[in-house]
Amino acid sequence: MEYNVIFQPSGRRGKIEEDKTLLEASRELGVDIENTCGGAGTCKKCMVKIEEGYFEKFNIDSKMSNLSDLSAHEKRKLTEEQVEDNIRFACHAKVNGDVLVFVPEESRGANQVVLETGKERVFNLNPAVKNYYVEMGKATLADERGDWERLQQALTEKYGELDRGLTIDYFALKTLPNSLREGDWKITASIWNDKEVISVNPGLVEKAYGVAVDIGTTTVAAYLLDLKSGALLSKKSMMNPQVRYGEDVLSRITYSMMNEDGLEKMHDAIIQGLNDLIVKMTGEAEIIPAQVAEVVLVFNTAMHHIALGLEPKHMGRSPFAPAVKQSLNIKSRDMGINVNPAANVHVLPIEAGFVGPDNMGVMIAEEPYMQKDEMRLLIDIGTNGEIDLGNSDKMLCTSCATGPALEGAQIKFGMRAAPGAIENVEIDPQTYEPRYRVIGKEEWYPDIKKTDSKGICGSGIIDVIAEMFKAGIFGKTGRINKKLETPRVRKGADGKMEYVLAWADETSIGKDITVTQGDIRAVQLAKSALYVGAKYLMEKLGVEKIDSVTLAGAFGSYINTESALAIGMFPDCELEKIVAVGNAAGDGAQVALLDKDKRDEAQRVAKEVEFVETAVEPDFQQRFADAMGFPHSKDEFPNLEKVLKANADKQGKAVNL
Amino acid sequence: MEYNVIFQPSGRRGKIEEDKTLLEASRELGVDIENTCGGAGTCKKCMVKIEEGYFEKFNIDSKMSNLSDLSAHEKRKLTEEQVEDNIRFACHAKVNGDVLVFVPEESRGANQVVLETGKERVFNLNPAVKNYYVEMGKATLADERGDWERLQQALTEKYGELDRGLTIDYFALKTLPNSLREGDWKITASIWNDKEVISVNPGLVEKAYGVAVDIGTTTVAAYLLDLKSGALLSKKSMMNPQVRYGEDVLSRITYSMMNEDGLEKMHDAIIQGLNDLIVKMTGEAEIIPAQVAEVVLVFNTAMHHIALGLEPKHMGRSPFAPAVKQSLNIKSRDMGINVNPAANVHVLPIEAGFVGPDNMGVMIAEEPYMQKDEMRLLIDIGTNGEIDLGNSDKMLCTSCATGPALEGAQIKFGMRAAPGAIENVEIDPQTYEPRYRVIGKEEWYPDIKKTDSKGICGSGIIDVIAEMFKAGIFGKTGRINKKLETPRVRKGADGKMEYVLAWADETSIGKDITVTQGDIRAVQLAKSALYVGAKYLMEKLGVEKIDSVTLAGAFGSYINTESALAIGMFPDCELEKIVAVGNAAGDGAQVALLDKDKRDEAQRVAKEVEFVETAVEPDFQQRFADAMGFPHSKDEFPNLEKVLKANADKQGKAVNL
Repeated sequence: MEYNVIFQPSGRRGKIEEDKTLLEASRELGVDIENTCGGAGTCKKCMVKIEEGYFEKFNIDSKMSNLSDLSAHEKRKLTEEQVEDNIRFACHAKVNGDVLVFVPEESRGANQVVLETGKERVFNLNPAVKNYYVEMGKATLADERGDWERLQQALTEKYGELDRGLTIDYFALKTLPNSLREGDWKITASIWNDKEVISVNPGLVEKAYGVAVDIGTTTVAAYLLDLKSGALLSKKSMMNPQVRYGEDVLSRITYSMMNEDGLEKMHDAIIQGLNDLIVKMTGEAEIIPAQVAEVVLVFNTAMHHIALGLEPKHMGRSPFAPAVKQSLNIKSRDMGINVNPAANVHVLPIEAGFVGPDNMGVMIAEEPYMQKDEMRLLIDIGTNGEIDLGNSDKMLCTSCATGPALEGAQIKFGMRAAPGAIENVEIDPQTYEPRYRVIGKEEWYPDIKKTDSKGICGSGIIDVIAEMFKAGIFGKTGRINKKLETPRVRKGADGKMEYVLAWADETSIGKDITVTQGDIRAVQLAKSALYVGAKYLMEKLGVEKIDSVTLAGAFGSYINTESALAIGMFPDCELEKIVAVGNAAGDGAQVALLDKDKRDEAQRVAKEVEFVETAVEPDFQQRFADAMGFPHSKDEFPNLEKVLKANADKQGKAVNL
Repeated sequence: MEYNVIFQPSGRRGKIEEDKTLLEASRELGVDIENTCGGAGTCKKCMVKIEEGYFEKFNIDSKMSNLSDLSAHEKRKLTEEQVEDNIRFACHAKVNGDVLVFVPEESRGANQVVLETGKERVFNLNPAVKNYYVEMGKATLADERGDWERLQQALTEKYGELDRGLTIDYFALKTLPNSLREGDWKITASIWNDKEVISVNPGLVEKAYGVAVDIGTTTVAAYLLDLKSGALLSKKSMMNPQVRYGEDVLSRITYSMMNEDGLEKMHDAIIQGLNDLIVKMTGEAEIIPAQVAEVVLVFNTAMHHIALGLEPKHMGRSPFAPAVKQSLNIKSRDMGINVNPAANVHVLPIEAGFVGPDNMGVMIAEEPYMQKDEMRLLIDIGTNGEIDLGNSDKMLCTSCATGPALEGAQIKFGMRAAPGAIENVEIDPQTYEPRYRVIGKEEWYPDIKKTDSKGICGSGIIDVIAEMFKAGIFGKTGRINKKLETPRVRKGADGKMEYVLAWADETSIGKDITVTQGDIRAVQLAKSALYVGAKYLMEKLGVEKIDSVTLAGAFGSYINTESALAIGMFPDCELEKIVAVGNAAGDGAQVALLDKDKRDEAQRVAKEVEFVETAVEPDFQQRFADAMGFPHSKDEFPNLEKVLKANADKQGKAVNL
């Protein structure tokens, strides 16, 4: 016998066999009802309201309905008010006739979530680690199964989605006998990829946690997420502790070649740093590191090798072959990461040479390969820059050594994005006086005089360089104009020109914060590398014009797109089609943590994207040198010209383009 | 086009397609030709002699034949004499017509080997770890594969038997980039179970090594084997270092319950002990521990739990549920065993409660479940005794707490089987004077006077107790007869009677070696437990009579079967059908190490064997007490009576049966 069952608000409907539970019915009809305890009635997550097909209210015992009678469990767990309100447990109520069921918001499976960090990103919540509650019969003399065989059978019988050959990690096995008895044979197993038990805890445990980390050459950004809801519980960043062994990728590879224990030292430094971040984040969320059930890592290829303890030296010279490209799953204990020792560490795949898992993070967060027609340029700005160009037809990628300037390093007053860092700058082209804003303060200088500024972060550097250019403090070559009549432009202690962005008394460091001729030079090198890389990709793909630009990077706030366009960091594009998305690599790591299907997508896309090696092109050096200047040709930068014109008109001063 | 190919001496023949190599032909026809390099011509293992189908000798270049011409490789590697002798590489010579091929002894795959230890056992050589040689193209800018992707592809293309989804262990991956370049892209991969690379070494590596260990409550026996030939390279034993925490299984479980770090301490002790044994064995074989590619462990259930770091306390009380029963594969690094960190540690399955992997070792070595009709009793004598009864129709098993007496512990002058231990004893029933033999000496006392004896090992204890009984030094109850006129039977320092087996001046310890009333008592407890266990199994199976008895145990030499029968360790059986097989558990560990199919067999058999819990039988205590006496009933022991009679007649003295 079959009956009509309709679920609201989704409106899904279908024929359901008699005596199936509403939970079973929901699964058959593709309706997602929250359910943690697997029908044991302990989680109370699957409460639904019966809208039709339920009669004779107000008397618990004599309710006639198209559903089975209230179970003993429901009678015990539901309040009288809930019963009167026709609330049932979907896992207990069985279909005996046609019913219309309303699934309240709180009972709906959270299948789609919005990533809380960076750009708003909506994606499926489908983590690799899920919790499964199960109740077992006690061990008896007559039932001589081992603890694990008992649990394995209970889990696979109750949860059809689990692999029949379910295994248990050795470290989880070690905790099994005591957990089972402590929980009186009612336990929650955390299972990785439906196939391996990675922890067993007494009673019903709903929460599961994961950590996503973007290990940049200069900056490490880490995120602690609730795998059950997708919520961001904590976010921390730090300077990559390997910086002491070299500021960029090549100097670290060199360090490992020159020092026998170089790789080990750098490996230990980053692992120790990660462990510190995890302690801080879990402390903030009031959990312990051992509750972290999975970790996802992204990094550039060199950071990938060093963090994994893989010899990086072969990557430092042609043909730059990495030790491994495919995505990896490594036990946390094998890497020395202090979380649940049975936890998996997922490493996104390498695309090619220096285009690493961090770029795959950007890719799966931004999904340019899903876009039809639009010719999209993605730039991930970091000490090593990655550039992608294309759409659903074809994607190209390349990488370039940008140097750490755009992350605030190798800049005289550079610092990472943290309170006290100047992150936005405007300069009056008439007076050369700046307005600036510091991370942690709402108001701008000079609206507040004491800004407690300490230095300049990446987005601030791009701003101040663009504004100095727009105000005519330096011209095409980047050389500061010595003849300007303002105390802000002066000769520095090293005899070279500099621009004073903040006077000592505004700061918390008691020193003038300046932008030096050397700083401008460092930014020129960086933007030239990115520009030339993008041009090569356009030529390779036969593209004249870019439809949109996406700027990613682990900046404190979003990069100012107009400033980025102004300094010529990429080929010309309409200003409104330039978008800054924050740390997309970090977002990608989080997306991969929360939705395991994105890992397969990354693995597939990594193989499809075509890598273009630009540094070997014969005219590379010449083009790189040509792109060092600040934009000047109207033909090449019509949009930039428009922007600068509008700006100049507004401020009543012409800018020599 | 197909041709007839015949291989000698096996005589296998069949049609082979043109242009297939003789090696391919041999595989198709099920002939095993040695081949390590996978056809690269570097290992020179696959040399075969062409008996027919090969013409015009004496001229390398113009040989007409039913095989392809000599390859450049063969021309370089074969001597002129070999060429004249019609020797070819099976991996290079291709079939162009009918041929008769002789496979010389040294080229035949060593598919069947004889285990060099214990009883002679013939079995298949099919280890889980095998070596695969492969040559790759170098990495180039045009070929942007990662090192692992390059190796993975080369291996799976060359070796069809490998899993398409071949993986690499993380620790092996860490050595990959340097190994590949050191070997100039010619390497040997050691692969576990055709699916995981566990080490990568430059060049051609033929050897692979494995370790099998039997961890007894009192004695640990370890074996280092050549996985390629099955040869035993070294064999070491030691006292289980956990003995300091308790002499038997229950006292160790108690220790772990009474001390918070008890499990950890005992776990560390046995792992440290294993590591010491491995260092000694590999040193003897002139290799290093990191070359050990797999480890197989057997132990009783309690030793299993403690060695694996699994809480043993639940095993100490009803319902005695183990943490896990099925066989396990654990990374050596996770257990702290210092071999190749990527090596697998295989743990044979537990049958039930106290019937552990060691009994599975006995089972797969002895294979009673293959035997039709014959009702066979297997006893593995140790501190914990395991008993199996049955045949191919059905197998039962049980376990009993024997105590360490039969291993030489808890005996006043007991010691493990090592030089200086008395291992055989005879006593003249007229004079009560003994003859005895010591491990390490050929001659018997009193043929040599100074025996340098230190103590008595397990087989010596069984002998001396049996001989004392047969000589009438004690009777049915086990109490020593105070009235015998011999200085050898005297009152000891503790006021209890004892028998002097060796006078102080014969020994190397300067003390009389005696057998005390307490020693007799300990042996009574042990033999009674074994006897009662066996009787329960017979009743459960409805068997009146046993056809054969197999006695296993980690004794120095084989136990004397007549002595074992004489003390009544098991129900009566014809003397010639009682066989002592040495450490069958250790043999089983070696068999599982050398033939991975035996692991599946063990896993299957473990589920089929039915466990009988004897200690809960209501009449257990009574029967145990009744069996303490020494055999006396003619009805119960017709064979024993026959033996004793013959013995008594020979010595001219009646024994009161």
